[in-house]
Amino acid sequence: MSSYGTLFRVTTFGESHCASVGAIIDGCPPGLELSADDIQVQMDRRRPGQSDLTTPRNEKDRVLLQSGLEHGVTLGTPIALLIRNEDQRPHDYSETDLYPRPSHADYTYLEKYGVKASSGGGRSSARETAGRVAAGAIAERYLKLAHGIEIIAFVSSVGKIHIPVSAAAADDESDDAPEPLSEEFRKLLATVSREEVDKHATRCPHPESAERMKQRIIRAKDAADSIGGTVTCVIRNLPSGLGEPVFDKFEAKLAHAMLSIPATKGFEIGSGFRGAEVPGSKHNDAFVRRADGSLGTQTNWSGGVQGGITNREDVYFRVAFKPPATISQAQATAQYDGTAGSLAARGRHDPCVVPRAVPIVEAMASIVVMDLLLIQKSRQAAASLLPPITTLPATMVMPPKAL
Amino acid sequence: MSSYGTLFRVTTFGESHCASVGAIIDGCPPGLELSADDIQVQMDRRRPGQSDLTTPRNEKDRVLLQSGLEHGVTLGTPIALLIRNEDQRPHDYSETDLYPRPSHADYTYLEKYGVKASSGGGRSSARETAGRVAAGAIAERYLKLAHGIEIIAFVSSVGKIHIPVSAAAADDESDDAPEPLSEEFRKLLATVSREEVDKHATRCPHPESAERMKQRIIRAKDAADSIGGTVTCVIRNLPSGLGEPVFDKFEAKLAHAMLSIPATKGFEIGSGFRGAEVPGSKHNDAFVRRADGSLGTQTNWSGGVQGGITNREDVYFRVAFKPPATISQAQATAQYDGTAGSLAARGRHDPCVVPRAVPIVEAMASIVVMDLLLIQKSRQAAASLLPPITTLPATMVMPPKAL
Amino acid sequence: MSSYGTLFRVTTFGESHCASVGAIIDGCPPGLELSADDIQVQMDRRRPGQSDLTTPRNEKDRVLLQSGLEHGVTLGTPIALLIRNEDQRPHDYSETDLYPRPSHADYTYLEKYGVKASSGGGRSSARETAGRVAAGAIAERYLKLAHGIEIIAFVSSVGKIHIPVSAAAADDESDDAPEPLSEEFRKLLATVSREEVDKHATRCPHPESAERMKQRIIRAKDAADSIGGTVTCVIRNLPSGLGEPVFDKFEAKLAHAMLSIPATKGFEIGSGFRGAEVPGSKHNDAFVRRADGSLGTQTNWSGGVQGGITNREDVYFRVAFKPPATISQAQATAQYDGTAGSLAARGRHDPCVVPRAVPIVEAMASIVVMDLLLIQKSRQAAASLLPPITTLPATMVMPPKAL
Amino acid sequence: MSSYGTLFRVTTFGESHCASVGAIIDGCPPGLELSADDIQVQMDRRRPGQSDLTTPRNEKDRVLLQSGLEHGVTLGTPIALLIRNEDQRPHDYSETDLYPRPSHADYTYLEKYGVKASSGGGRSSARETAGRVAAGAIAERYLKLAHGIEIIAFVSSVGKIHIPVSAAAADDESDDAPEPLSEEFRKLLATVSREEVDKHATRCPHPESAERMKQRIIRAKDAADSIGGTVTCVIRNLPSGLGEPVFDKFEAKLAHAMLSIPATKGFEIGSGFRGAEVPGSKHNDAFVRRADGSLGTQTNWSGGVQGGITNREDVYFRVAFKPPATISQAQATAQYDGTAGSLAARGRHDPCVVPRAVPIVEAMASIVVMDLLLIQKSRQAAASLLPPITTLPATMVMPPKAL
Repeated sequence: MSSYGTLFRVTTFGESHCASVGAIIDGCPPGLELSADDIQVQMDRRRPGQSDLTTPRNEKDRVLLQSGLEHGVTLGTPIALLIRNEDQRPHDYSETDLYPRPSHADYTYLEKYGVKASSGGGRSSARETAGRVAAGAIAERYLKLAHGIEIIAFVSSVGKIHIPVSAAAADDESDDAPEPLSEEFRKLLATVSREEVDKHATRCPHPESAERMKQRIIRAKDAADSIGGTVTCVIRNLPSGLGEPVFDKFEAKLAHAMLSIPATKGFEIGSGFRGAEVPGSKHNDAFVRRADGSLGTQTNWSGGVQGGITNREDVYFRVAFKPPATISQAQATAQYDGTAGSLAARGRHDPCVVPRAVPIVEAMASIVVMDLLLIQKSRQAAASLLPPITTLPATMVMPPKAL
Repeated sequence: MSSYGTLFRVTTFGESHCASVGAIIDGCPPGLELSADDIQVQMDRRRPGQSDLTTPRNEKDRVLLQSGLEHGVTLGTPIALLIRNEDQRPHDYSETDLYPRPSHADYTYLEKYGVKASSGGGRSSARETAGRVAAGAIAERYLKLAHGIEIIAFVSSVGKIHIPVSAAAADDESDDAPEPLSEEFRKLLATVSREEVDKHATRCPHPESAERMKQRIIRAKDAADSIGGTVTCVIRNLPSGLGEPVFDKFEAKLAHAMLSIPATKGFEIGSGFRGAEVPGSKHNDAFVRRADGSLGTQTNWSGGVQGGITNREDVYFRVAFKPPATISQAQATAQYDGTAGSLAARGRHDPCVVPRAVPIVEAMASIVVMDLLLIQKSRQAAASLLPPITTLPATMVMPPKAL
Repeated sequence: MSSYGTLFRVTTFGESHCASVGAIIDGCPPGLELSADDIQVQMDRRRPGQSDLTTPRNEKDRVLLQSGLEHGVTLGTPIALLIRNEDQRPHDYSETDLYPRPSHADYTYLEKYGVKASSGGGRSSARETAGRVAAGAIAERYLKLAHGIEIIAFVSSVGKIHIPVSAAAADDESDDAPEPLSEEFRKLLATVSREEVDKHATRCPHPESAERMKQRIIRAKDAADSIGGTVTCVIRNLPSGLGEPVFDKFEAKLAHAMLSIPATKGFEIGSGFRGAEVPGSKHNDAFVRRADGSLGTQTNWSGGVQGGITNREDVYFRVAFKPPATISQAQATAQYDGTAGSLAARGRHDPCVVPRAVPIVEAMASIVVMDLLLIQKSRQAAASLLPPITTLPATMVMPPKAL
Repeated sequence: MSSYGTLFRVTTFGESHCASVGAIIDGCPPGLELSADDIQVQMDRRRPGQSDLTTPRNEKDRVLLQSGLEHGVTLGTPIALLIRNEDQRPHDYSETDLYPRPSHADYTYLEKYGVKASSGGGRSSARETAGRVAAGAIAERYLKLAHGIEIIAFVSSVGKIHIPVSAAAADDESDDAPEPLSEEFRKLLATVSREEVDKHATRCPHPESAERMKQRIIRAKDAADSIGGTVTCVIRNLPSGLGEPVFDKFEAKLAHAMLSIPATKGFEIGSGFRGAEVPGSKHNDAFVRRADGSLGTQTNWSGGVQGGITNREDVYFRVAFKPPATISQAQATAQYDGTAGSLAARGRHDPCVVPRAVPIVEAMASIVVMDLLLIQKSRQAAASLLPPITTLPATMVMPPKAL
C-alpha cells in the first residue's frame, strides 16, 4: 500500500501525469518549528536538472503545505503537502501504447491493475518519491533538534567504480584476509558531511572516485545508455534501543524502506555481504569502555545493530540501484500483443540515478528512525512509571534511562 | 513487533528458556487440508543436530496444534501452535551475567527493555524462528496446492566459497563485461529441487562447492571459530501482479522478511549488487512472446519483479548471514560495567548457520508471498465485478483475469 | 490516527483554518468509472447552508481530484482529493484565547498536543469530515455498481421527537411486551430512499415527525440554544459473510466508524438497547426458506449480523449525536487559568447537526462495508482455488460461492 | 482479524472444542511484576458456574503462561498464555448438523468460511473471551501500578429492570426536563468498587435492583428462556490526552472493543442516547477550577471525553447485551436445506450473560486504555525533547507535562 510507519506514518499519492504528487505525514510530534524552506532544501537535492549528469526536466517541485502547522509550528495533526506536476510532457511516452518498456513497470502495472496510466508505470515513476523526501525532511528536522541525529548518504559506486573499501581480493579464502571494510572508508563514515557530499555533481565525497564516476556517467550518456550504482548512508548519534524484535528489527525496517525506492536491487548493513565471508573471530565486535564510561564496541562490523536493536554505534548501510531502464538506444523487444519490434526511448532521461537517489535514501532512513524512535520512547516512558523490580538480581536490571 | 503480514498474519512468541515457543497464524484460507506432519517436515529441517555441521542440541521441536483446524481441515480461524522447550540448559549461559557477549543481543536487549532474560538476548535466539517455520509451512502448502508455487532455498556460499556465479572480475570496467550471473547458475535456479538441496549436509546443491564448504565449516569448528555464508532462494510459478506499490513492493516485503531473520546482514534480488555495476543496455530484460502466447522476458536480471510487482518470471534473491557470534575461543571484551576481561562461550554451538537457515528463508518467503497473494486476489475479485470500462482505449485496459 | 481501513484505507487531513482539507483513498478497485460529480453529490448534502436549519456559512466544498484517475477511470492507485478552505473567518474565534469552550475540544487538544490551533479544537471540527464524505462517495459508487448495495441514512429523532418505533412503555416488564421495533419502522427501513430523505429539510422521511422536528430545531435556534438527535442508517443488498471475527466484527467496525464522527455519543445495531430488555424467545431470529431457496430470517432483531458476520438481511443501526456545544447564549465557565467567567459564542452555528450528519453516517458506513467486502473477497477467492475437502461430512462444508 | 491494538496488541486464538484457547500479548511494558495469580482473579470472575445464575459447566480456566516473563517480571517480549479446553462435551451440539441455531453464528460462519467447526459458531463462542480477559488483566495491572487507574464494570440492567438512572419520562419534550443521569447514579459511578460489585451474584451494586434482577433471571431460567441486559463501566484516574483523532478517538476505540464482545448490540458513552434528547445549554460541561488548581468540568455529560480525547474526568459507558440465543424451549426454525422444523437446545446454558460479561468489559476497556496510553506517552516524550516554541503566543502553548 501507500503508507509506511506505525506512529510516524507517511502516505504518498500521485503519478507522473496527474494534478499533483504529495503526502500526508501523520504522527509528527507537536511543537516542532518547521518551515516550507526546511523541506525545500531536500526537495531541491532530489529535483532533476541539478547538473549535467541528471535529466534537465524542470519540475520546480515547490512544496505546498496544506495542514498541520500554524505560525510555523506543528500541531501534532496530519501534515498534508503537495507538489504540482508542471512539466508533464505526456507526448514523450506515446510509444508505450504499443510496447511495454523493458525493465519498466508498464507491463506489471497492467497485469496488476488491469488499467494503465498514460505514463505506463503509474506510481513506479521516481516522481512519486517527492512526497517521501518532503516527509523525510520533516522527520530529519525532529531527529536533529531533539537528538542531534545526523543522516548522511552519498554515492559509493557508479558502475564498477567504487570508493576504495577493502583490499581483500574476492577469492582470498584464508582466515588472515583483511577486514571487511578499509580504515579509510570507516573514517569517511565517521566524518562525512552533507556539504562534502554536495561538492561534486556525483555526490561522491571521495574526490578521486567522484571524478572517475563522472566520466563513467558521461560515457553512458554518450552511448545512449545508462549505468547503475550504489548509495551508502550513515546514521550518527542514534540512541540505543531502537528496533522492534522480531519482525521489525531496525535493519529489517531499513531494508524494507530502501527496497521500496524505485530501481533498488539490494541492501546490506554493516559488513553486509562481505561479512558473510569472514570468520566470527574476525567479525565479532568486542565491547570496550568508552571515555564517558558507557559501553561501546571496538569495531563496528555489526553496523550499529545487534539483535535488530541499535547499540549507539553508527548505523551504516548500502543500497544497490540498477541502471535506469530508459535508454535512448534501440532495443529489440516485443509489443503487448507479442509482436517482435524495436523500441527507443524519446525525451531526456537520467543516465544514472544515484546522485539524485541520495536525498531519497536519507528521507527513507529518517522516516524509519523516526518511527522506531517514537515506539521506543513509548516503552521507555511506560517502564519509567513502574515501581522498582524487587525479584531480579541487580545485574539483570538496568535503571530506567532518560528519554 | 512480533507480527508480520496484513491478511496472512503471523505472530510469534517465546524465548530460549521459557515454557514454549510458537505462533498464531491468522488469515489462513479455510478448507485447506493440513496435518501436523505437513508442518513437521520443515521443522525437522530447521532443527539443530541434523548433521556434524550443526549443533547437537536435541530440541525435538514437535509442533502441537492448538486451534484453527478440525478433522485435518483449516477453519479459517487462527491456527495456534507451540513447540515445548525441552533442552534448555540455562547453566551454559551463566557467564553472561557479567559479560555482554560480543555481537550478540545481550547488551542491546538490556538497553532496550531494561531487564534481561536469563538467556541474554531474549527473542534474538534462533529458537524464535521455530514458530516462523511452522507458519511458513502452512503458507507453502496453500501456495503449492492452489497455485503450484515452489519455493526452494539453498546455500550459495560459505565463507569465500561461492557456487560459481559469474566470470566477471570485480574490477572489469568495460561495457563488454560478462553478464551478472552465469548460465550455469541460472540453470540451477530453474531446476533445483528440495531433494537435491538436502542431499548434502551443507544444503548446497552444487556438489563440488558443497564439499569445499563442508571443509570450510569443519575448519571453523576445529579452530573454535565460526563462518558466515549466503542463502539463495528461488520462487517459481508465481502469478504476475503480486506486490503493493509503493511501500509494499514485492522486493521490499521480501527484504523486510529476510532481514528479520537472526544474523542476516544483506539482501539482494535478481542481479542485485552486481546489477548496480552494469549498463542499462546489458541489464534490461527485453520482452518476448512465450510459447503459450503470453509475454515473458528474454533475460531475468530483474529477478521476477518490475516496479515492485511480480511479472511471472522466477523470483530469486540472496541473503547474507554473518558468522555466528558464539565461538568457543577466548575473546577480549569488556563486562557490563566496563571492566576489561576475556570471554569464551561454553556449550555447543553451530559453527555455521546457513544450512539450517535454508528452511527459515523458505518460510519467510512463503509468508510474504501468501500475504501479497491474498491482497492481490481481493483486488482482482473486486475489479472483476465492475461494468466494462467505456472511456478508455482498448490498449489501456486488460480484461479481468481468472483468479 | 488519521487513517481508517485495511485494504480500503482512508487518510484525512486538515483543520478548520488551514489551506485545505482532504483525504487520500488507498486501495480503491481499479477500473471504476468515477467523476468528481459522483463525489460532489454527497459533498453538497454535507455542506452547511442547505436550509434554514443549518449554518449559513458558504463553504462551497468543491472537490479537487489530484491523482489515481485518468479519463474518469480509477487506476487502483491512491486517489488524493482536497477541498480548499475558503470562508475561514478566524476572527470569530478570538475569545477562545482565554476560554476553553465548554464541551468543545479546545481544552483536550491543548492537553494532548501542548499547542493549540487558532480554531481551538483543531481536527475536531466537523470540517474534517469533508474528506470522509468524499471517500465514502467513492466506496458507495463501487458498492452500488458491483453489488447493488444501498446505504441510506436518515434523521430518526431530534430532541425527544422520535419517529414512532415501538409501542412498548419503558417500564413494561412483562414477557408479553411488544416487539422491540414497530412494524411501521421496519417497513420504513425496507423501503426508504435517499430522495424521500431529502424531501424535508430535517432529512426525516416520516413527514409528521419531520415537521415536529423542524419546530424543535427552530425553538432551539430561537433560544440561542441547540438540540441533539439520532441518525438511523440501513444497508440493503449486502452479501453474507462480511465482518472479521473476533475483533473486527461487522458491528464493531461500524461502531468504531460511527463513534469517530464528531459529536456522537452512542451506537446500536438491530434491536440495540431495546433488545437488551427482552427475552431470547422474543429476540431470536428464526430461519425460514426464502422464495429463491436460500435461508433468511423471519425477523431481523439481529440487524443483519450474527457472530459479527453479515447474514444477507438488512443491516440497520442508530447513532446518537449530542446537541452542538456551540451556543450563542452566555455560559458560566472558567478560563484556561481557572478564572471564573462567562462565554457566549459569536458567529453562526448549527442548532442541530443531525440533518447534515446523514451523509457523514452514510460515508463512514460505506467505508466500513467496502473494507470488509475486500477482505472477504480475498478469502473467497483464495478458498475457491483449493482442492475439494475430502475429510469432512458434507453438512460441514459449503461449496465455494461466486464472488 | 484476531488482533487488537497498535502498541499493546492482543491476538487471541481458539474455538470451543479445540485443544486450548489463549492469546499473545505483545507490547507489554518491561519490568512489570506479574504472576499467574494476578491474571487468574479476573479469569475466575469470567468463568461459568460461579452461581446459580450462570451455566454450571466447569471449565476451570487455569492460565498457563508460556513466555515473556522470568522470575515474575515481564521482559517486554510477547506474553503467550493458554487455557486448556477440558470440558468440551461436543455431543451436546449434534443437532446443529441439521439446523443453524437461530441468532447464533452457525449460519454466518458457514457462509463466511465454507467450513463449519463442530461447535457451529466457531470463534463466536464466549469461550474465546478467556484470552481477552487474561490480556486485560495484564493491562489493568500496569494501569493500576503506573497510574492508579481503576476500571470497574457492573450490571446496570437485566431485562427492563434498570438501576435508577433518570427521572425523565421518555416523552417529556420540555426544555425543563431533568438531567440525563440521576445524582444517585453519578454517585455510584464515582464510588463503586469491585468488591461491591461482586457482593451480589448478579454483579449489580445497587442492592434493591440486584434482587429484582436475580428474580428476573430466575424467571427466564424457569421458562426455559433467556434475558438480556446492560453493563456499565467507569474508568477513574485516567490522565488527560488519551485518544487519537480523528479515527481512533477514545470513544471510537471503546465502541469498537465493546461491540467485538459476543452478544453486544449497543454502546453509549457519557449521556449517550439520552444526551441526544436534550438541549446544548443543559448538556454542555462548564469548566471550573479544581481544588488542586487544574481545570475540571462541573458536570460530566461528555463522559470524560471531548473531541475524542480524555479530559481527566471519569469515563463511563454502557454496553447492551442481547438475551442469549441458546434457549431450551422449542423454536420453529428451518434447517440448512430450508426444511421447516423445530429446535430445542440441549445442555445447560446461561439464561443471562451480563454478570459474566462484567470482567470481559473491564478487560476490553483495559486493553483500549493501555494502547492509547502508550501512544500518547510516545507523543509526550517526543515533544518534551524539542526546543521551546518561540513563534506562538503563550496562550497557545502548554509546557510539556510530566509523563
